[in-house]
Amino acid sequence: MIGQYWKKLQNVQPVVHNITNYVTVNDVANILLALGASPIMSDDRTEVEEIVSLCQALVINIGTLNKRTIESMFLAGHKATQLGIPIVLDPVGAGASSLRTETSKRLCEELPISVIRGNVSEIKALFGEKSDTRGVDASAQDQAFGVRASSVVKMLRHFAQTSGAVIVASGETDLVTDATTSYLVYNGSARMPKVTGTGCQLSALLGAYLGANPSSQLEAALAGVVHMGLAGEIAEECLLKDEGNSTYRNRLIDAIDNMTDKRLEAGARYEQV
Amino acid sequence: MIGQYWKKLQNVQPVVHNITNYVTVNDVANILLALGASPIMSDDRTEVEEIVSLCQALVINIGTLNKRTIESMFLAGHKATQLGIPIVLDPVGAGASSLRTETSKRLCEELPISVIRGNVSEIKALFGEKSDTRGVDASAQDQAFGVRASSVVKMLRHFAQTSGAVIVASGETDLVTDATTSYLVYNGSARMPKVTGTGCQLSALLGAYLGANPSSQLEAALAGVVHMGLAGEIAEECLLKDEGNSTYRNRLIDAIDNMTDKRLEAGARYEQV
Amino acid sequence: MIGQYWKKLQNVQPVVHNITNYVTVNDVANILLALGASPIMSDDRTEVEEIVSLCQALVINIGTLNKRTIESMFLAGHKATQLGIPIVLDPVGAGASSLRTETSKRLCEELPISVIRGNVSEIKALFGEKSDTRGVDASAQDQAFGVRASSVVKMLRHFAQTSGAVIVASGETDLVTDATTSYLVYNGSARMPKVTGTGCQLSALLGAYLGANPSSQLEAALAGVVHMGLAGEIAEECLLKDEGNSTYRNRLIDAIDNMTDKRLEAGARYEQV
Repeated sequence: MIGQYWKKLQNVQPVVHNITNYVTVNDVANILLALGASPIMSDDRTEVEEIVSLCQALVINIGTLNKRTIESMFLAGHKATQLGIPIVLDPVGAGASSLRTETSKRLCEELPISVIRGNVSEIKALFGEKSDTRGVDASAQDQAFGVRASSVVKMLRHFAQTSGAVIVASGETDLVTDATTSYLVYNGSARMPKVTGTGCQLSALLGAYLGANPSSQLEAALAGVVHMGLAGEIAEECLLKDEGNSTYRNRLIDAIDNMTDKRLEAGARYEQV
Repeated sequence: MIGQYWKKLQNVQPVVHNITNYVTVNDVANILLALGASPIMSDDRTEVEEIVSLCQALVINIGTLNKRTIESMFLAGHKATQLGIPIVLDPVGAGASSLRTETSKRLCEELPISVIRGNVSEIKALFGEKSDTRGVDASAQDQAFGVRASSVVKMLRHFAQTSGAVIVASGETDLVTDATTSYLVYNGSARMPKVTGTGCQLSALLGAYLGANPSSQLEAALAGVVHMGLAGEIAEECLLKDEGNSTYRNRLIDAIDNMTDKRLEAGARYEQV
Repeated sequence: MIGQYWKKLQNVQPVVHNITNYVTVNDVANILLALGASPIMSDDRTEVEEIVSLCQALVINIGTLNKRTIESMFLAGHKATQLGIPIVLDPVGAGASSLRTETSKRLCEELPISVIRGNVSEIKALFGEKSDTRGVDASAQDQAFGVRASSVVKMLRHFAQTSGAVIVASGETDLVTDATTSYLVYNGSARMPKVTGTGCQLSALLGAYLGANPSSQLEAALAGVVHMGLAGEIAEECLLKDEGNSTYRNRLIDAIDNMTDKRLEAGARYEQV
C-alpha cells in the first residue's frame, strides 16, 4: 500500500514551496531532492503568490518566523487555497512564545491546512492544551508519555476533527490521524532527535507526498512518516565507529535518496488503532 | 592552461563578498574555504559598501531575495563597480517570478556584471526569451536540449554580446562564452543536480577565480567550471555503497579541497566551439 | 577538573538561545545537540524576551547582523541580564565594518557579557586597537603573532579587566582569561579554520557550558575551549584519504557527540600563564 504513494511521487516529481526557517533549510532542500521532488524557497510578499502557483504543495514552517515572513505565509496560504494546493504546517516551538502559538493558531483558523506536523508539546499548544515546553523540543513529560497512551490518541483525534487537518504527531512512536482513521508508526531511530531539523525535514517530505497524492492525504502522510522513520533506521544501521549526529544527518538523507518502494513496503511498521 | 588560474587563486587567496540566499550559504562558504579563498557574507545596506571594499570579488545570488537585500545588492554592486571589483550574478529562479526576473534584469542593466551563471532556463528568462520553468531547476525541455545544440550556443553568444558579460550556462554540458570565444565543458556528474546549491557553489567559486584573475575573465571562468565539474566526477568515484546525495555534497566539497593544478590539468575536458 | 563541567552540562541539558547568522546556524544547532544541550534560534523582537526566559544561556553572534536583528540582540540581552542568564558575544567580523565594530562595542557597554569569543583581530577591533582585517578571518599578522606572545596575553588580560568578561581568543593557540587567571589552550587542529563557523560553533558551545555552570564561568569557558579543540584533533585523526573540509566538519561535530569526561580529561592540553 505504502509503496504506491512513493511511486506516484517519483512520477509527479512535485515542486514544493517552502516558507521555512534558516536553521534547517539546507537539509530540507536536500531531503526533497533525495525524495525526487524539487524544492523552492521563497518568503517575500511580492513573489510568494506567483511561486506557490508553480508548485504542487506549500510547506509553512514557523521555526524562525518574523513579521515579514508571517505576512508571506498568509499570502502564499490563501493563494494555495484558491488553487487547491495542499498546505503542511509545522508549528515549530508553538508554546515557547505567544508569537509562535498565536501565529500557528491563526494559520489554522484562516487556512484549510491539510497536515499539521509537530511534536506532542507543539500540537497541544496549538490547540490550547497546557504543556510544558523545552523551546523547540518536546517537554520531558510529553516525550515520556508519547502518543501510545489511548488518552493522547483520543486528544489528537479530537484535534484532527476540530481542525479538519490530518495530524502527524512525532515522537518515539508517531501518530497519523484524520479523526476517522488513526495509525501508530513504529519506524524511527532514537538518534533522530539529536539531528536538528528532522521534524522540519519530515514536514517538507509530507508536502512532497501530499503534492503527488492530493486525493489520498491520510495515506500519503502515513507513507511519508514511514519513509522518514525507515530512513532513520537504515541510517543507524549504516553508522560506523566514531561517527555521531552530524554524519548521521547525512546518512539519513542518503537513505531517503536510496529508498525504493520494495524496501519501503518491507520495512514499514505501523498499525491502525 | 587551466592550472595557472588555480595557482594564482592559491597565491591571492581572494576574499569574496557574497550577498546570497540562506538555503545554500553554508556550502558556499565551505567551498570557498576549500578553494583557498575567504568568504564573507553580508547583506545589510549599512555595511555592504564597506565590506565589498575589503574584497576581490562580489557574488550576487538572488535565491531568497527580498526588498531589504535587493537594495544591498545594488549598493554593493555600485561600490564594486567604482573599485573595479568583478561581479558574478546568479539569477536563481529567474522566470519563476516577476520579482526574480525583473531584479536580475535591473542588476544586468545597472551593473557591469563580469559573469552571469545560471541554468539555461534562468538565462533565457533573464534575456527575455520564453522558457518553461520548474522553480529553481531548468525546465525538462531546457535540460534535454542542453547547450550542445548550435542554436543554443548561438543564443547564449548573443546574450554575452548584448550584456558584455561572460555567460556560464550550466547543464549536463556547460557553456562558457564571451561572444568572441566559446567553450563547451564536459566535466561533471549526473549526481550534481541532486544536491541543492551546486549552482550557487559554482557561482561563488567563479567569484574566487575572477577575483584572483581579474584580467583573464573568460579563462578564469572556464577554469572554475572545469574545477567544479571535475570535483563532481571525483566525488562520484569516491561514493560508497549506501551513500546518497547528502554524503555526495560533502565529497564534492572535499574534492575541491584536495584539488591540485596537475589534477585539474589532467582531468579537464572541454573544447572551443 | 575539566570533566566535571562537561558532566554538569549532561545533567542540566541547558536550552541555549542563539541570535546568530544564517551562514553557520545549522552546524551551531547540531553541535549543541551533540553536546547534550538544546538549541533554539529566534531573532524577532516580538518574541526574543519570552524565548530567552526559557533558556539557560544567550549567544549573540553578529555574523549577518541587520537593523532588525540588532534590536532583538539588545532586547534579549537586557532580559537575560534581568534574569541572570549568562551571555556569550561572538563579534564576527568586528573591524570589517563600522556596523560590526560599533554594534559589538554597544553590546559590551550595555550588557554584562559573560564571555567574548573571537579571533585576535576581532577582539582588538572591539577594544579599539588597530588591526588589519581579512573580513571574518584573522589578519595574517594576527594569525602569525597568535596569543602566545606575552604582549598579546597582557593586552587580552587588560580587555578582560576593562570589560568584566572572560575573553576567549581563538587561534592556533587559544587564550582564556578573566584578567586574574589566564590559560593557554594547545588543543586544536590546523584544519579547523578551513571549516566555516568553527568559531561560531565554539561560541555556542561556550553558551551551553556557561548555562550549565553559571557560577564557574572561567573554568566552564576553559572546559569548552578544550572540548572544541580536542574534538578538532579527534576529527583529524578520523579523516580518511580523499576527505577534505566538508567531511571534516561532520567528523568534528561527531567527535563532540562522542566525547566523554574521561576522554576530555585525558586529552586536555593547557597551562595557566
